[in-house]
Amino acid sequence: MKIGFMGLGAMGQAMVSRLLEAGFEVTVWNRSPGPVTTAKANGAAVSESPVKLAKASDVLISMLPDDNAAHEVLVASKALEALGKDRVHVNMATVSVGFARGMQALHQRLGSHYVAAPVLGRPDVAAAGKLNILAAGDAAVLERLQPLFAAMGQKVWPLGESPERANVVKVAANLMLATAIESMGEASALTEAHGVGRDDFLEIVTGTLFAAPAYQGYAKLIREARYEPAGMRMGWGLKDVGLALQASQEGRVPLPFAGVLRDSLLDAMARGDGEKDWAAMAETPFRRANLPR
Amino acid sequence: MKIGFMGLGAMGQAMVSRLLEAGFEVTVWNRSPGPVTTAKANGAAVSESPVKLAKASDVLISMLPDDNAAHEVLVASKALEALGKDRVHVNMATVSVGFARGMQALHQRLGSHYVAAPVLGRPDVAAAGKLNILAAGDAAVLERLQPLFAAMGQKVWPLGESPERANVVKVAANLMLATAIESMGEASALTEAHGVGRDDFLEIVTGTLFAAPAYQGYAKLIREARYEPAGMRMGWGLKDVGLALQASQEGRVPLPFAGVLRDSLLDAMARGDGEKDWAAMAETPFRRANLPR
Amino acid sequence: MKIGFMGLGAMGQAMVSRLLEAGFEVTVWNRSPGPVTTAKANGAAVSESPVKLAKASDVLISMLPDDNAAHEVLVASKALEALGKDRVHVNMATVSVGFARGMQALHQRLGSHYVAAPVLGRPDVAAAGKLNILAAGDAAVLERLQPLFAAMGQKVWPLGESPERANVVKVAANLMLATAIESMGEASALTEAHGVGRDDFLEIVTGTLFAAPAYQGYAKLIREARYEPAGMRMGWGLKDVGLALQASQEGRVPLPFAGVLRDSLLDAMARGDGEKDWAAMAETPFRRANLPR
Amino acid sequence: MKIGFMGLGAMGQAMVSRLLEAGFEVTVWNRSPGPVTTAKANGAAVSESPVKLAKASDVLISMLPDDNAAHEVLVASKALEALGKDRVHVNMATVSVGFARGMQALHQRLGSHYVAAPVLGRPDVAAAGKLNILAAGDAAVLERLQPLFAAMGQKVWPLGESPERANVVKVAANLMLATAIESMGEASALTEAHGVGRDDFLEIVTGTLFAAPAYQGYAKLIREARYEPAGMRMGWGLKDVGLALQASQEGRVPLPFAGVLRDSLLDAMARGDGEKDWAAMAETPFRRANLPR
Repeated sequence: MKIGFMGLGAMGQAMVSRLLEAGFEVTVWNRSPGPVTTAKANGAAVSESPVKLAKASDVLISMLPDDNAAHEVLVASKALEALGKDRVHVNMATVSVGFARGMQALHQRLGSHYVAAPVLGRPDVAAAGKLNILAAGDAAVLERLQPLFAAMGQKVWPLGESPERANVVKVAANLMLATAIESMGEASALTEAHGVGRDDFLEIVTGTLFAAPAYQGYAKLIREARYEPAGMRMGWGLKDVGLALQASQEGRVPLPFAGVLRDSLLDAMARGDGEKDWAAMAETPFRRANLPR
Repeated sequence: MKIGFMGLGAMGQAMVSRLLEAGFEVTVWNRSPGPVTTAKANGAAVSESPVKLAKASDVLISMLPDDNAAHEVLVASKALEALGKDRVHVNMATVSVGFARGMQALHQRLGSHYVAAPVLGRPDVAAAGKLNILAAGDAAVLERLQPLFAAMGQKVWPLGESPERANVVKVAANLMLATAIESMGEASALTEAHGVGRDDFLEIVTGTLFAAPAYQGYAKLIREARYEPAGMRMGWGLKDVGLALQASQEGRVPLPFAGVLRDSLLDAMARGDGEKDWAAMAETPFRRANLPR
Repeated sequence: MKIGFMGLGAMGQAMVSRLLEAGFEVTVWNRSPGPVTTAKANGAAVSESPVKLAKASDVLISMLPDDNAAHEVLVASKALEALGKDRVHVNMATVSVGFARGMQALHQRLGSHYVAAPVLGRPDVAAAGKLNILAAGDAAVLERLQPLFAAMGQKVWPLGESPERANVVKVAANLMLATAIESMGEASALTEAHGVGRDDFLEIVTGTLFAAPAYQGYAKLIREARYEPAGMRMGWGLKDVGLALQASQEGRVPLPFAGVLRDSLLDAMARGDGEKDWAAMAETPFRRANLPR
Repeated sequence: MKIGFMGLGAMGQAMVSRLLEAGFEVTVWNRSPGPVTTAKANGAAVSESPVKLAKASDVLISMLPDDNAAHEVLVASKALEALGKDRVHVNMATVSVGFARGMQALHQRLGSHYVAAPVLGRPDVAAAGKLNILAAGDAAVLERLQPLFAAMGQKVWPLGESPERANVVKVAANLMLATAIESMGEASALTEAHGVGRDDFLEIVTGTLFAAPAYQGYAKLIREARYEPAGMRMGWGLKDVGLALQASQEGRVPLPFAGVLRDSLLDAMARGDGEKDWAAMAETPFRRANLPR
C-alpha cells in the first residue's frame, strides 16, 4: 500500500514519522521545502507536485491547514482527478462541514473514496502516536485503513458512513477546548481579583473536578503564561471557532459561547498575539479586568 | 471535641454520617425534622435550637443553603454569640465572598474563630468521604480540624488565613462547572443539528479530551436527560452563578460566560425546570435551536 | 398643599427649582448641607430631619439615589410612619421592582398612599421642566398630583394602579439607553477600524435612522469623549443595569444584552472611570479592539 | 446620460420608479421577469443580459442581493469588462467591505469608475425618494451622479474617495438597527413579565427617548407582531449581521452585541421565520422567557 502524505506542518510531520516508524512506504509533498528535508531524512520519498503524488498513491492523506489550502492543493490542482478510481483520500485536517460535503460529492463523481479522519491531540500527542481519530466513510474502506490509523493513534472513533459527521464532531470538540481555555481565564481572573492567584486556583481545579487532559495541558501554559512557541496558533484557533460558527449558521444553532470566544480571540489578536498559542486567549479576561500580569 | 452540625440537606446528611462513622460525637440541628430523625438513628444527638447547639459545641459546622439562611440561623438567632471565646465555627457551605468577610469580622469581635471550608463534590461524593475541602482560616485552628476534614474529604486544599479566599475559589470552581454543562449542551446541539446525536458526541469527548470527573458525571445526566432527582437543584445553580456575578462586580471583573450561564438557567427555569438538576441547563441550547429531544 | 422633598442631587435640585418657580410651597431635606443652601436661596424651607419633614408634608416627594438610601431615610428612620394617614409619598427615583412592591405594602399598612413616578430625562431636561413622568398609583391620588407633575414634566405616562409597573418601565427604558450607548460604541469601533472615525459615523446615524434624543445626546458626548462632569455617573449606570438584571431574574427573563452591558461597565470601572458619565462605556469597545483614541 | 439598472427587488423597483419619474432614461435587467414587466410599464427599456446592459450604459447601477449575486452578475458574466473606460458603476447594495475592495481593484484595472453608494431606508422610503445615500468614490464622479442621487434620496452623505468606507458605514448602521430591534424585544419582554405589555411599553419609549425613525418603524411591527409581508427578510438580516462579523474579524474588533444578534436571528430562523421581516427577531427574547404571545 503506497501512502501519499500532503501537508507537513507540525502535526503532519509527527504523523509521517509514526507511519515511517511503523514500516509504511510514504511519499510526501509540501509547499515549503524545509519539512520535506526532515521527512526525507526519516525515510520518506518526495514527490514534486500534488498531481504526481496523487497519481502514485493508493492512499492519499492530506493534512492541510484550512479549506482554502485544501481546495487549492487538491481540487484546483486536479490532484484528486489524478488519484484514480477506487483509491482513497483520507482528509485528517480540520475542515468545515460544508467542505466535507463538497469533497464527498466530488469523490463520488470521480469514483474514488473519501474518508474524513480529523484527530484530537496536539503535535506532542501525534508524535507519541496517541491521537484520537474521528473516522467517517465507507465501512470497508475504514477497515482497510486500520493499520495506518493504528500507527498514528491510540483509538479510532467510528462515526458512520457520512464523512461530514466526523468533521462536525471535530469542530464541536475544538469549540469545547476553546471554551475550557476561556473558562479558566475568566474563573482565575475572578479569584485573582480577590487575592487568589491563577497559579493556586488552576492547580486546585485541574487537580480535582477538571483533572482532564484538555484542562491540565492548557492550565500549564496559562499558569506559566508560556504561549510561545505555539502548539496551536491563535489564528488557527480563530479559524476553528469560525468553523463552529459556520456550522451553527447552517444548522440554525444559536451558540452564545462561540460568540464570546470569537471576541476573546479577536481581543488578543488586536494586541498582536495571533502567532502565540491560542491558550493566550486566557489573558483576555485578565485584560478586561485590568489585572496586570 | 464536641461537634455541632447545622443544616442537614443532602450534603449535610452525608457529611454527618461520615463524622459519626469516624467516631466523632456529633449533635445536630435542622430546621425541618425529617433529616434529624435519620441522623439520630445513625447515632447523632439532637439539639433544639441553634443557640443551644452553639453553646454546647467546641466546633460548630454549618452547611446552610445560602447567605440569608446562614444569617438568620447563625447571626439573627444570636447563635454565634452563644458559641463562646476560642470556639470554632466552620462554614462549609457555598456563601458569598462578602458574607465570608462579614462573618470573619463578627467572629473577631466575638473572640471566636471562623474557618471557611467549602467543598467540591456532590452528595454521592460526600457520602463516600471523597470531598475536596477548600480551607482558609487561622493555621493553628486548621491544624486542629484535620481529623474532621479527614473524615469527610479525600484532600484539604489550604488557602491561607483569610476565609474569603476559600469562598472565591469555590465560587469560581462552580462557575467552571456551570460552564462545562453549557459547553456540552452547545457543542452537542451543534453536532445533533448535523446528524451526530448527543449520546455519541458526549461519549467521544468525555472519553478523550474531557475525561474528567466534572464532565463525565454531568455528561451521563445529559446523555440520559435524567435530571430528577436533583443532585444539585437548578435554583441553587442560579444562586451560585449569582455569587460569581456578585464577586465579579465587587472585583470589577467582566465575565461574559457568567452572563450566558445566567440566561441559560433562567431560560430553563422559565419552563419550570427550577427543581431539576442544574445539568438540565444543557437542554437550553437544544431548545434555542428548536431541536426536539 | 405642603410639599416635602427629600434628596437634592442634580435631579432633585432641578425638580425643586421647577416646583418653586411654579409657586408651590416646598420644604426640603438633604443629607449633605450644600444643596440645601441653594434650595433655601431659591425660596424653599428647610427641615432638620426626614421625620420632621414627613410630619409636615401633605405630599412627600423622594428622589434618593438607590434602594438602600431610600430604605434608610424613609423606613429605618420611621419617616413614613410620621407621614400620617391619607398623605401621599411620591417616589420619583429609580428603585428596584421589589423595593416598589415592599413600599406599596408598607404604605397600605400605614394608611398612606404610595405613588411611583420615576422620570425619563437627565438634569438639564429636569431643569427645563421637560421630564417624562412614568406614574403609577391610585387614580384619584394621581389626579391630585397633576399640578406638581405639570411643573416638573412635559408629559405624564399613566401606568395604572400598581406602583411597581412604573418602576419596571423605568428600569427597562434605562436598559435601552445603556444598549444605545454600547451600540454606538461597537458600531463606531467597527467603522474606525476600517478608516471611518467615530465622529463622522455618529454624525450620519444620529442625523438619519437614529435621530432621537437618546442617541443624539449621548453621541455628542462620545464624539467629543467629554465624560466629565457626569450627567449620570457610571456607578449609577451599573446600579441601573443591576436593577434590570434583578427584575429579569425575578421574572425569569433571559437578557443577553444586559450581561454584555454589565461587562462593558465593569471593564470601564476597572480602569477607574466609575465617576465619569456612563456614556464612557462607549470607550470599552474601542479598548477591546485596541484602537487608540 | 444612459442609466442601466440591475436588480429589481423591492428596493430596486422603487429606485427605478424614482429615476423614471425624474425623467432619466433607464434600461433595466433582472434575473426573474416579473419586476421587469412592471418597470417596462413605467417607461423603462429592457436589456436581455448583464453584458448588453453594461455595454449600453454610461452609468450602471447595481442593487443585487449579496456578494455572490453581485460577483456572478457583474464579474463572472464579464459585464464589467463590457462597461468600458470612464464609464461608472454605482453599487447601491449592501455588500461586504472585502467585496468593495475587490471591486475597486477590478475597476481600476479596467479603467472604469467604481462608486459605492449603499442606502439607508426600506422600500417605502425608497418609493418616496427619501433614502439617505452613503456615497464614496472619485469626487468628480460623485459630482456627476448628484442628479441621480437627488432623484432617489433626500440626502447624500459623502464618505471620501475609498468606496469601502461607504460600505463599512452601511454595515455598521445595519448592526445598530438590528441592535435596536433586539433591544426593544428584550426590554419589552422584561416589562411584560412584570405586567406591562409590549404595546404600552413601546409606545412610551418610542414617544420619548427613542422617538427616532428606526425605533418607531420597527416598534409598530413588533407591537402588532405584523411581520409579513417582509420589508426586509430575516435571511437578509442574518446576511447583514454576518457582514458586520466579517468586517469585525478583518479589523480585529470584538463585537459582543453582534454575537447576540446572530443568535437571536438563528433562534427565529430555527422556527421557520426566515421569510418574515427581521423585526420578528424581537420575538426571540419573549420565547426565551417562555412568555406566550
